[in-house]
Amino acid sequence: MSNDQADIQPPVKVIEWVGDGPRGYLRLLDQTKLPVVTEFIDCKDAEAVHDAIYRLVVRGAPAIGVAAGYGMVIASQYIGDADFLTGLEAAVEYLDSARPTAVNLKWAAQRVYRRAQSTISDSVDEIRRAMLEEARAIQAEDEQLCLAMGRYAAPLIEKCCGILTHCNAGALATAGIGTATAGLYIAHSHGHKFEVYCDETRPLLQGSRLTAWELTAAGIDSTVITDSMAATVMAQGLVQMVITGADRIAANGDVANKIGTYGLAILARHHNIPFYVAAPYSTFDLHLASGQEIPIEQREGKEITAGFGRVTAPAQAKTFSPAFDVTPSELITAIITDRGIIQPVNVDNVAKLIGAE
Amino acid sequence: MSNDQADIQPPVKVIEWVGDGPRGYLRLLDQTKLPVVTEFIDCKDAEAVHDAIYRLVVRGAPAIGVAAGYGMVIASQYIGDADFLTGLEAAVEYLDSARPTAVNLKWAAQRVYRRAQSTISDSVDEIRRAMLEEARAIQAEDEQLCLAMGRYAAPLIEKCCGILTHCNAGALATAGIGTATAGLYIAHSHGHKFEVYCDETRPLLQGSRLTAWELTAAGIDSTVITDSMAATVMAQGLVQMVITGADRIAANGDVANKIGTYGLAILARHHNIPFYVAAPYSTFDLHLASGQEIPIEQREGKEITAGFGRVTAPAQAKTFSPAFDVTPSELITAIITDRGIIQPVNVDNVAKLIGAE
Repeated sequence: MSNDQADIQPPVKVIEWVGDGPRGYLRLLDQTKLPVVTEFIDCKDAEAVHDAIYRLVVRGAPAIGVAAGYGMVIASQYIGDADFLTGLEAAVEYLDSARPTAVNLKWAAQRVYRRAQSTISDSVDEIRRAMLEEARAIQAEDEQLCLAMGRYAAPLIEKCCGILTHCNAGALATAGIGTATAGLYIAHSHGHKFEVYCDETRPLLQGSRLTAWELTAAGIDSTVITDSMAATVMAQGLVQMVITGADRIAANGDVANKIGTYGLAILARHHNIPFYVAAPYSTFDLHLASGQEIPIEQREGKEITAGFGRVTAPAQAKTFSPAFDVTPSELITAIITDRGIIQPVNVDNVAKLIGAE
Repeated sequence: MSNDQADIQPPVKVIEWVGDGPRGYLRLLDQTKLPVVTEFIDCKDAEAVHDAIYRLVVRGAPAIGVAAGYGMVIASQYIGDADFLTGLEAAVEYLDSARPTAVNLKWAAQRVYRRAQSTISDSVDEIRRAMLEEARAIQAEDEQLCLAMGRYAAPLIEKCCGILTHCNAGALATAGIGTATAGLYIAHSHGHKFEVYCDETRPLLQGSRLTAWELTAAGIDSTVITDSMAATVMAQGLVQMVITGADRIAANGDVANKIGTYGLAILARHHNIPFYVAAPYSTFDLHLASGQEIPIEQREGKEITAGFGRVTAPAQAKTFSPAFDVTPSELITAIITDRGIIQPVNVDNVAKLIGAE
């Protein structure tokens, strides 16, 4: 049964609740130390969880959500019976302040808070147990979303001997086996042999630091390239598909994702290579008609000009540093979701799979 | 007359012969210190010239050639009358060993050696003077090639308010105002206002370290981007042309240039933006029928995985690191040479301008 998809685990426990009951603590892989050192941080109070989220020890929207859920349980350990619910309410605000733009953070903390609110019991320990159950449910749901995407993606990956990916839409960003990487882990567990080309993904190098790390940790052959080498990898026939994650998807299927994704989609089209995006239903924002409505964050110039602790551009030069770009749906072969595959990518097919609640 | 093209100088003296006669020495801008420190190195013996070429204090095929020419004059200062020519012959070999794959290096050193050989005089100092004249001729010829390319490119640049370039095909790589940059310097001297977007050009960052440095030093507005941002710059309408240099051009007009150039040409085509290559006649290698015959050097993986003194990829990951890529002539709008503009780029038009000696 080793090929049973339910058995597929990420190569490392990114987020783990240690201890049986609600008096346990949160163990996080310290992603700031990757790819050189594999080290874990044990968070035993709310301050430690806040700090871990703030310092990007844990990152990726789903993973942050899961950590925040457990963070609420930890916070509850320090709140007395008398002011339990008000104390928890303050904990939601406190944890949320670690990364205010991460929507999943507040969503998960509030979900655990509401569970506490709705648990009718004289015993605060009973309520803490319910909260832990809720935090575990958030984690389990994310694991299931990853598995579902992976099941749809794996057959596509098993037709390829080379796959190109960008940034980190991996196990490190989720509670499970990742979004874009889920199919890779499943195909690997089936014994399929393939090579993953990881764009290093400037400026912050999530591809080389994180994706290449987690894939090689799982025993999947990985090759790191600079972003500028992707076109040559395609021209030489080394990859038969491209797969990336998504930060936000509009109603018409336009995808906002890490800067460089759009260029990659153009290169794939030029070389007749299918371009896939993997994302759970929660990444879709159907209030946005198209990608043009997605706001694009501008990052600090020094990520480009001094990204490695050394100044690599003259002080007089300006920078232009969008964090994301928008890939129009016409360039996307299919979007792989936990509910199935959207192909061709258009407003009707998105509505059919995602709009129907 | 400040707009007279003959007056246009590079923003800094990259290579300078100091002193009137053949007893002078060579002053080189230390490009290893850029973009943070502007420092010069004075080379007063052949060892210093060898070291400067070896350590990339001076780089770029034309600039290396000019430095080697002067290096021969410096070497001659240490050779006695008795074994003058044999000593010079050894100097050619010695200088060439600094960077054996740089064709211009040996070509220039031999040219100065042959001038010594053919100078009939009883005075070795007389011969040294002839050698210096030859080294100066090499420099002057390169300056003229740059100016000629710039004259053809400037009218194209003056139609644009944004220009994208890749790597460094600039003044720092030549004895003059560069190849791809020549038109920028001339358009700037005409008072034309424009913004140059410099791809940082991973792995070695010649775009951010060198091109952005020399353009801002000349007062030209420059914006550094990561290579992965070029597609977004194009999509947002920020540039109306792309211009790059070339390392080698085949008879059919296929261009080998720094890795990333090919992808850029595809992106430009997708956005209907003209893609230009600037290169002197000497970059063409008409023995090669097409770009497929151009050998592509593979670089060491650590330029990708530890390019900034810090390890940014796991030890288990492989790398793929071609130094160059080949852009097929179909993607090139025109090649701007010192002899005129090749457009459309095809075997007949290349032969017409370059084949005719």
